[in-house]
Amino acid sequence: MIYAVEWKENYLELLDQTKLPTQTVFLRLHTIEEVYEAIQKLRVRGAPAIGITAAYGLYLGLRELSLASPETFFQKLDEKIDYLSSARPTAVNLFWALKNIKDQLQKTADISVEDLKLQLLEIAKEIQEDDGQRCEDIGKHGLAVVPSGATILTHCNTGALATGGIGTAFGVIFNAHRNGNNVAVFATETRPVLQGARLTVWELMTAHIPVHLICDSAAASLVQQKKVDMVILGADRIAADGSVANKIGTYNLAVVANHHKIPFYVAAPLSTFDVSVKRGSDIPIEMRDADEIRRIFGECLITVPEAPAWNPAFDITPPELISGIITERGIIYPPFSDKIQKLLTT
Amino acid sequence: MIYAVEWKENYLELLDQTKLPTQTVFLRLHTIEEVYEAIQKLRVRGAPAIGITAAYGLYLGLRELSLASPETFFQKLDEKIDYLSSARPTAVNLFWALKNIKDQLQKTADISVEDLKLQLLEIAKEIQEDDGQRCEDIGKHGLAVVPSGATILTHCNTGALATGGIGTAFGVIFNAHRNGNNVAVFATETRPVLQGARLTVWELMTAHIPVHLICDSAAASLVQQKKVDMVILGADRIAADGSVANKIGTYNLAVVANHHKIPFYVAAPLSTFDVSVKRGSDIPIEMRDADEIRRIFGECLITVPEAPAWNPAFDITPPELISGIITERGIIYPPFSDKIQKLLTT
Repeated sequence: MIYAVEWKENYLELLDQTKLPTQTVFLRLHTIEEVYEAIQKLRVRGAPAIGITAAYGLYLGLRELSLASPETFFQKLDEKIDYLSSARPTAVNLFWALKNIKDQLQKTADISVEDLKLQLLEIAKEIQEDDGQRCEDIGKHGLAVVPSGATILTHCNTGALATGGIGTAFGVIFNAHRNGNNVAVFATETRPVLQGARLTVWELMTAHIPVHLICDSAAASLVQQKKVDMVILGADRIAADGSVANKIGTYNLAVVANHHKIPFYVAAPLSTFDVSVKRGSDIPIEMRDADEIRRIFGECLITVPEAPAWNPAFDITPPELISGIITERGIIYPPFSDKIQKLLTT
Repeated sequence: MIYAVEWKENYLELLDQTKLPTQTVFLRLHTIEEVYEAIQKLRVRGAPAIGITAAYGLYLGLRELSLASPETFFQKLDEKIDYLSSARPTAVNLFWALKNIKDQLQKTADISVEDLKLQLLEIAKEIQEDDGQRCEDIGKHGLAVVPSGATILTHCNTGALATGGIGTAFGVIFNAHRNGNNVAVFATETRPVLQGARLTVWELMTAHIPVHLICDSAAASLVQQKKVDMVILGADRIAADGSVANKIGTYNLAVVANHHKIPFYVAAPLSTFDVSVKRGSDIPIEMRDADEIRRIFGECLITVPEAPAWNPAFDITPPELISGIITERGIIYPPFSDKIQKLLTT
């Protein structure tokens, strides 16, 4: 079992994901500045993993400071929150996650500065444990839909590298494997940023789960040849009607699974649901720079340098193509709308 | 209009495709050894373009030799055919194309060595003109299915670079553009070898046809958003029932087009039909080396170096997903079997 980050007595151990898959390098972070650098340089990625790293970073930034009173502690905390949030200015979630830590700490005021520091470390640990437990629960519920010996097609990276535990869709696969179900995996390379080729293949090989890498375009032929029993992948955002926004290529796999009548499951924690968004077409799609396609890793030029490119970060899969959504509170099946409401309010 | 190869009075001009798309370099080939090197190093690719290049190469190999008699001419011709065929040992078509030239020459025996040499050059020119005319005819018939202002999704490279003319699927697009139909194109990058990104985008931009490059996995989302009116692509081999073997990813696009009810056309010359193969499942699929996926251009490593990969060169699209097949003798529509028989025998 791999951890993206792990607290080690008095420092944070962080797997440098920019070195993967060719090198497995663990960094020892002792200061908030080192945490800032790790987040900024994408050494850690995935919203949950970034949030956990930043929480420990706050503690590292405050633990050595001499602070006269709880008031000065909270002043410094605000500074450090602003500082860490600026490491990934577009990751709005990161700022809110850190703000949330402050709110929690303020509830336990009237304690000493030293106790506040210890409390901050405890909150960071709880965030990680909580995310880890959520992944475990998703993995546990997922067992119900993975037949023994199943061959699973997955997309992008949804594993330990992105979360505080075994991952979401990856967690289902990992847990099935851990339970002695002889699963095998086909992982898409996931153009343009190649998270499948770089990270998922590495995580599967590290866990000794049989894997084959495929080009994204080969998925249909693979399913046509009955080499795959089911698709399981993650989600970035799920609308009130069960529409799933996820890495570009997800909808392509949903259409293929539907054509060949194989199950198509989405695994995601409840925090992914955004019922303020009514339907899939209401989810705005981030369009990214053409160079992300044109230059692999910013280096390897694959086309005319000034070729126009259409490069959406995500696509939208409508609920009618989804067999079920695996959450930490169980699996929901279509029609989704009422079940999503119920899941979020109970 | 670009040519892959062009005869220039006394030498062969060849566009070095290994330099594309960043450099447009034309080579001047004066000897058969230079032609051998160009074929071997993939400076020219696509069965028709290779066949044409080799035909001129034979002439370059024989034109300066002092040969006492037609018998010695034909002996030397055999040697040169073996030599050029060995430049791409897996390209069986190349050997048969050159053998066919010899058969043609033998029909016109009883003429002098010098006349045989001139005849050889004439045959090379005829092969190129013949292929060029076939492309023109495919392009002409294709006009019938391309609505004015159509946005077309295409896959891999089927253009002038691969043929002796305007190309097959590319020929339809090019001819629609040339006829003032304001077409626009989305070109898939076509992993793993990226023929779409490297060659098709370059050809379209050179011809001033509006183009956007997309990742293969983005095709479904593109069609879902109604940004594409139709798919047109080529074929490597077509079975008696109309099943199409073509570059991996073709079947994926067929499934997507079918799901969204947009037309899916295949453009290919009659030489692509192989009625000795009854159905799609009888077509053997070449499996290629994992490194083709793992290392882009043999250099840029994108995954664990020893990651297993599933890398079929082609996939099979069943006839029920094909709207029509555009040939130099017209378009055939499903059901295909009888029409294919008729097309090949009249």
